[in-house]
Amino acid sequence: MDDFKPTARTRIKRLAKRAHYDRETVYRILDQGLVAHVGYAIAGQPYVTPTNYWREGERLVWHGSSASKMLRSMKQPVPVCVTVSLFDGLVLARSGFHSSVNYRSVMCFGEAAEVTDPAGKLAALEAFVERITPGRWAELRPVTKQELKATCVIAMTIDDVACKVRTGGPIDDEEDYALDVWAGVVPLRMVAEKAQPDARLKPGVPLPSYLRHVDLESYASRAKAAE
Amino acid sequence: MDDFKPTARTRIKRLAKRAHYDRETVYRILDQGLVAHVGYAIAGQPYVTPTNYWREGERLVWHGSSASKMLRSMKQPVPVCVTVSLFDGLVLARSGFHSSVNYRSVMCFGEAAEVTDPAGKLAALEAFVERITPGRWAELRPVTKQELKATCVIAMTIDDVACKVRTGGPIDDEEDYALDVWAGVVPLRMVAEKAQPDARLKPGVPLPSYLRHVDLESYASRAKAAE
Repeated sequence: MDDFKPTARTRIKRLAKRAHYDRETVYRILDQGLVAHVGYAIAGQPYVTPTNYWREGERLVWHGSSASKMLRSMKQPVPVCVTVSLFDGLVLARSGFHSSVNYRSVMCFGEAAEVTDPAGKLAALEAFVERITPGRWAELRPVTKQELKATCVIAMTIDDVACKVRTGGPIDDEEDYALDVWAGVVPLRMVAEKAQPDARLKPGVPLPSYLRHVDLESYASRAKAAE
Repeated sequence: MDDFKPTARTRIKRLAKRAHYDRETVYRILDQGLVAHVGYAIAGQPYVTPTNYWREGERLVWHGSSASKMLRSMKQPVPVCVTVSLFDGLVLARSGFHSSVNYRSVMCFGEAAEVTDPAGKLAALEAFVERITPGRWAELRPVTKQELKATCVIAMTIDDVACKVRTGGPIDDEEDYALDVWAGVVPLRMVAEKAQPDARLKPGVPLPSYLRHVDLESYASRAKAAE
């Protein structure tokens, strides 16, 4: 599939070597992230709402209560910027100026609109559950009509993206390498800890296989394998 | 200090029990987060930019290159929404509908503007370095005039906030507790791994004390102690 094309709103001018427009890099970040920050404006006022999301092909999808302000505002197509950022490390240079962070981020631009047909909504919710906990959808009781009605699903086709990635150690001014200052990287990582059963868990229900080893970094490779 | 007052843009109507407006809860989240998502609009187009930030009293502060589009757009005061979200766990209920996530989030509203006086900029940068790596500012060579000129510092006074916190296990429909479905919480946490020295680290420079045990959750308590 073609790369995304840089546009007026996504062309990265500063530190252009950090810019990426190829779908593999962009989708890998989107498939690993769990939280997106959705930016939109209501009467000129910007709002940024954190939400879980998932990717289906060229679309991003998220959901919530039909009553939420963000989702209500999106029942007509509205321009949004959906940003996913993964924060990989602190980069300590020999000067404050060259200190930085390692990160992978994607700003996705497009128009968000509600998914209204019930079958489409249900398929989207299944994809969301299966993405995070593969095999769980079949274990759950069916979604009721009322629940489906109370749930709002929003989708946006990704029109263009600004994707930036920084990796590696600090890059210092040549003369600063002689300084007696520690320099390097402190890697940061989101980890899943041991699953905690609910106090009212029915006796005898075992820990499902999808929770035996939750590796948040495997989401991206799993999504790739499914394509 | 007074609590924040709910306003038209920050009053939380849905799941109001998750809403918090007291400064201690709000500031604790802001002081623990490392990345904020800054939302603003340029000619009606929303943008959401991830950035490191820090809190100084009632202000949020962030910085970047004087050349960046986001920061350039903020040389006049502009309305922004700065959102910090901490993602604490997956909440697996006995139904998809009641499954959720544990999180702490703050949407901060206000007007962002550049900090122009050099002494104020320098003090802000020191506060940023000291927040993450206490004791490091004194180890670094002084910031040059040119570096200070190339750095843009933005500050916003927090006018109002919408803060939401979800904690604890799933809350299921009463009849679903009889189902043979695993339910509980998968805690998620951002952790710092072992610091990796730069390949060109000067021999004999020891690992500084501020890197011996990086506990990302201690940032909030450290900020509280400094007040």
